[in-house]
Amino acid sequence: MDRLRRVEVLRGALDGVADAMLLTKLVNVRWLTGFTGSAGMLLVGPRRLLLVTDGRYREQAEEQLGDVGVDAEIEITSSPAELLRSASSGWGTVALEADDVTWSMERQAATEWFPAAELVPTSGLVEELRAVKDGAELDRIAAAAAIADDALAGVASQLGNRPSEAEVATELEAAMRRAGAEGPAFETIVAAGPHSAQPHHHPGSRRIERGDLVVIDMGAMVDGYRSDMTRTFCIGEPSAEQRRLLDVVEAAHDAGVAAARPGARTADVDAAARSVVRAAGWAEHFVHPTGHGLGLEIHEPLRLSATSDATLAAGHAVTVEPGVYLPGLGGARLEDTLEITPGGNRALTRSSTVPIVG
Amino acid sequence: MDRLRRVEVLRGALDGVADAMLLTKLVNVRWLTGFTGSAGMLLVGPRRLLLVTDGRYREQAEEQLGDVGVDAEIEITSSPAELLRSASSGWGTVALEADDVTWSMERQAATEWFPAAELVPTSGLVEELRAVKDGAELDRIAAAAAIADDALAGVASQLGNRPSEAEVATELEAAMRRAGAEGPAFETIVAAGPHSAQPHHHPGSRRIERGDLVVIDMGAMVDGYRSDMTRTFCIGEPSAEQRRLLDVVEAAHDAGVAAARPGARTADVDAAARSVVRAAGWAEHFVHPTGHGLGLEIHEPLRLSATSDATLAAGHAVTVEPGVYLPGLGGARLEDTLEITPGGNRALTRSSTVPIVG
Repeated sequence: MDRLRRVEVLRGALDGVADAMLLTKLVNVRWLTGFTGSAGMLLVGPRRLLLVTDGRYREQAEEQLGDVGVDAEIEITSSPAELLRSASSGWGTVALEADDVTWSMERQAATEWFPAAELVPTSGLVEELRAVKDGAELDRIAAAAAIADDALAGVASQLGNRPSEAEVATELEAAMRRAGAEGPAFETIVAAGPHSAQPHHHPGSRRIERGDLVVIDMGAMVDGYRSDMTRTFCIGEPSAEQRRLLDVVEAAHDAGVAAARPGARTADVDAAARSVVRAAGWAEHFVHPTGHGLGLEIHEPLRLSATSDATLAAGHAVTVEPGVYLPGLGGARLEDTLEITPGGNRALTRSSTVPIVG
Repeated sequence: MDRLRRVEVLRGALDGVADAMLLTKLVNVRWLTGFTGSAGMLLVGPRRLLLVTDGRYREQAEEQLGDVGVDAEIEITSSPAELLRSASSGWGTVALEADDVTWSMERQAATEWFPAAELVPTSGLVEELRAVKDGAELDRIAAAAAIADDALAGVASQLGNRPSEAEVATELEAAMRRAGAEGPAFETIVAAGPHSAQPHHHPGSRRIERGDLVVIDMGAMVDGYRSDMTRTFCIGEPSAEQRRLLDVVEAAHDAGVAAARPGARTADVDAAARSVVRAAGWAEHFVHPTGHGLGLEIHEPLRLSATSDATLAAGHAVTVEPGVYLPGLGGARLEDTLEITPGGNRALTRSSTVPIVG
């Protein structure tokens, strides 16, 4: 979506919902205005656009809103009651982000900020607008994906030298920063041997040994946008059981990717990947959805799951990440970040295969 | 506070407030039960103690609650309505953490979870209990402080080699992880030259040059507990102006530390540090409070500021961190993490001086 039209599109989405909206979720304020401070609220009225922040962010707010050409009033105050009360004069209803705003803040909004208006709880209103990315957003996700790919390529050859999980995670995150990432997109997962059977293992002191499966789930952040990928390494030649596990997960991944195209129901993409795992007899060991939307947040509301009723569209950025976790034997997951294109999809991370480290 | 008494003390604090409490703030759930999962709620009734989490955390919850000897029922569900409704039968009031719970969740609590009870907004109830640390908590903060100190000592000698701010931050965070930290306590600040005049500068590509003041604000996290310290380096011999700035900040730091003892009002500790800066003519350039409580969170409610009305007590963990920020010339801040002891205080970080890197 054209950067400068975002506020107008939100005003359209508010039509019939409320006269105005007070945004408290910072990532939504960032998407609408470019402001990246750690404190601030955005009031979107039919005509007014008002960013309220504190003294630390005066210069930053002016610069960032100027950079993206957003024409908002910027008010610096830590006690916005009078300002908001006067701005809302004549409004009958004000929407809040009910999944983000605290109960304390809602109570303050009701009594001090908008005493004459009815507060309207909304859920996912801006997130829905954020689901389809514009070219500049996709470029940032792709840049983040490339940094993560390069960092992993640089570290992969050392996996045979018995590093600990935590050492590998530290080195990956440092390599992403050296390459220009603001940081990791989320806490890097390195899960070796039996730990690979835990989908969200926290990397620890266990050393990576010959015969291990090693699941590495990582991403980078560039200009606020995040990438996400998972690779499963085998240290030494895989056993017959490991080989079968890896083949099944790779086939499930490929089936999910092949199904991800505009017009496809997200539940059908999930079913495409899951049916491969089910046919192998491991349905109960694929314990999470097939994927999720991502962008300014690592998990955005779009879900590729059996219970989702969404439909993919060009410009969506999603992961496809089937995994199978076998207690005792270990686990495997393969994940790419995809842009949904008019003709199908494009992997922003490099193609997933299972590397064998000798 | 004795680990196993925490829930009992909370029940005491609830007396006269509500019949029971539903905790949603994870760091408070962790403090009460040892549970470190990323999703969960704790229901504290007069007799019942019920941890609700999802399937990912079944084993972890059992292990962690067992480790600390907390005798709670553990329920695994993503739809806790029926469970909570039945558990609350007979309760007239249920407290929520109003500064943490979202408006969505409060609405759900009112209609689905506790339809027969009145919801009571509370603020800082558990946080107040967390302010005084027990020995095991102080040991963890001290361990984190030692890791941060060692990491900085290892990097300090390289500051003369023109590294970028971001390179220094990356290396400090990697060094803390290698030494056993779970990660940094917060995003490391490295602010060189003119950037040192910004209290919360984000480290970037600027190289550290001869003549720079370099403010490094960093901490480590060990078992969830965080340390916090700031050192200001001068690259080469300081100019007369830099020397005066550094001397004033060091004197303000020492005055704040000397005032930090049991029974002291936090506003008086702030005044002790601030009066030194004021006497130097720079009152308006000391733009933040003198310090804050810390522990499982990097900023806990205890504030060492002019408007705080708290009193220090033995077992409090606080920072003392005066800073002066002069646009054009640069800034300086010196910060230590202190344990308030019966006789005064003890620095958990090493004593702050201004290192000169030649």
